[in-house]
Amino acid sequence: MVSEQVNRVWRLRARPTGNDFGDALRLEEEKTPSPQDGELLVKNRILSMDSGTRMYMTEREDSYQPGTPLGDPILGTVIGEVAQSRHPAYAEGDLVRCYGNWSDWSIATPLASYVAKLDGQENDLADYVGILGANGWTAYLGVVEYGAARAGDTFLVSAAAGCTGSMAGQIAKLAGCRTIGLAGTDDKCAFLKSELGFDAAINYRKGDLATQIASAAPDGVNLYFDNVGGDVLDAALTNMADFGRVAVCGLLANYSAEGPVPGPYKFDLVLMKRLTIQGFFSPDFYHREPEINPILRQWRDDGVLKLPIEETAGLENTVNAYSKLFTGANIGKVVVRV
Amino acid sequence: MVSEQVNRVWRLRARPTGNDFGDALRLEEEKTPSPQDGELLVKNRILSMDSGTRMYMTEREDSYQPGTPLGDPILGTVIGEVAQSRHPAYAEGDLVRCYGNWSDWSIATPLASYVAKLDGQENDLADYVGILGANGWTAYLGVVEYGAARAGDTFLVSAAAGCTGSMAGQIAKLAGCRTIGLAGTDDKCAFLKSELGFDAAINYRKGDLATQIASAAPDGVNLYFDNVGGDVLDAALTNMADFGRVAVCGLLANYSAEGPVPGPYKFDLVLMKRLTIQGFFSPDFYHREPEINPILRQWRDDGVLKLPIEETAGLENTVNAYSKLFTGANIGKVVVRV
Repeated sequence: MVSEQVNRVWRLRARPTGNDFGDALRLEEEKTPSPQDGELLVKNRILSMDSGTRMYMTEREDSYQPGTPLGDPILGTVIGEVAQSRHPAYAEGDLVRCYGNWSDWSIATPLASYVAKLDGQENDLADYVGILGANGWTAYLGVVEYGAARAGDTFLVSAAAGCTGSMAGQIAKLAGCRTIGLAGTDDKCAFLKSELGFDAAINYRKGDLATQIASAAPDGVNLYFDNVGGDVLDAALTNMADFGRVAVCGLLANYSAEGPVPGPYKFDLVLMKRLTIQGFFSPDFYHREPEINPILRQWRDDGVLKLPIEETAGLENTVNAYSKLFTGANIGKVVVRV
Repeated sequence: MVSEQVNRVWRLRARPTGNDFGDALRLEEEKTPSPQDGELLVKNRILSMDSGTRMYMTEREDSYQPGTPLGDPILGTVIGEVAQSRHPAYAEGDLVRCYGNWSDWSIATPLASYVAKLDGQENDLADYVGILGANGWTAYLGVVEYGAARAGDTFLVSAAAGCTGSMAGQIAKLAGCRTIGLAGTDDKCAFLKSELGFDAAINYRKGDLATQIASAAPDGVNLYFDNVGGDVLDAALTNMADFGRVAVCGLLANYSAEGPVPGPYKFDLVLMKRLTIQGFFSPDFYHREPEINPILRQWRDDGVLKLPIEETAGLENTVNAYSKLFTGANIGKVVVRV
């Protein structure tokens, strides 16, 4: 019986300070839960590490959803197999992607947990939370629809070596843009240019960022795909071309903030340059998977859209894996193989 | 000879502090200028008072155009008659709207000064800088195009008793929105409701603004037409509905600021609520006058679009008139009759 097995679960035991998760998250052992009517018990195989999760570790009044209550398990996207189904549309052994927990086992309710049955075609399960998952859809829609990328545009992306950023840059290139990526090490910058086809890459830790962007984009930036907010957003705003668009995909710089964070100091430029700033995020895109994934899969198969996957083995190492998103230690998608 | 007449000119002699223009602007007497080839000499009749002019009295690096150099005349929209033409398309006696100076006479270069020949049909010349001028176009496009107002939307506008704001509210009503105006006195609020058809009006000086907006817009604001920025923008952002739009027409709160002003503290909500913020301003709309003015004129003639005009007589009283924009002393359009 599954329910006699031990379930290891990462629970939020304190609000983290900054990006120190050591005291805040604890791996606890408990009884594996039993699914109720309409629920699935999922054996987790892959945990997707997503920076947005950080937001819910703090209590914020401006969040999309309330902060995770202390004591609750950490919620995140997982890939796993249905071990027990009490829902008519799912059977034991189905491969699914859903909102689950950072744990050995998750309970999922198909509608509320965004459960999607997976075709099992992929060699690497992690692709279902990478190129063919929420990051892929977000990169695609952020560039193509929200950002309305046009051939000839100068395209700038922050966290360009990250999962969404790296794909956004490659998709912008496919749309005919000149692409500039911002990353935090020279190695990442070199990788963006040599492996992912970026036209230029800037190490934002070296020298004045606004000046560096100005050099790389002398005619201004038409589309800025922002994953981080904060000072980087200000440096980008300074360099926007008139009528430029800012697609706000993430505000990493704010996720760990305590209390209100001032908006960009260059906010006036919204008016002066007649900019459009638009926020968007993946929970709005799940229903579009059938339309977007064939495009992304084709690009991947053609070798024009690549996503390095950085895999950590063992649920017990989840916090180490998660921290990489904030210390800039990763390139591409970070996952944990349970 | 015109050139032997005295021209009184308001010149910028110091950078104003806040909204105290007393020491900064001086009315000086000088020789009336002579038009060069391609230029017009315009006898000013009406000066349009526009809050954006304040921006150019300060040196700002983020402006649409550089700050006015000390010693230069103040530039603004004027209505006048061509007194001397050295341009083939204009004749003496033509009635024009153009960028001119706060002075008795202006020199205008047709293309650079946005000179438009006026039909002279209006009983009140001031209408050409009110309903049928840049404020009218800005209100119209801000609501209809940038804001994409839809029937059933909850529409909020700041500086609702001002020229652009009052028209924006009425146009939003014509588009089928429920309209809420923000103004600084109870009298203005009463006027918005009784005379301009606003569904609700809030005195932003009384009590917590975010709470007041929440009461007036329990389902959130779909479209916020912003003329002021600052704290008012934050209060509006707090109350935006998901997928709401913020049409940024002006940032009055920032115009007199020295040094960088932080952006809205609720900027995170751009992401959390998937908002769109878009800036726009009238210099981009001049070419659309022939398309927009017939609509605005029809609404005015039908009595569904009204604009009170507050007229000050005498060039020497221009600073008094201008100050009204910042002290909240006016309703509708402020003009000076030279």
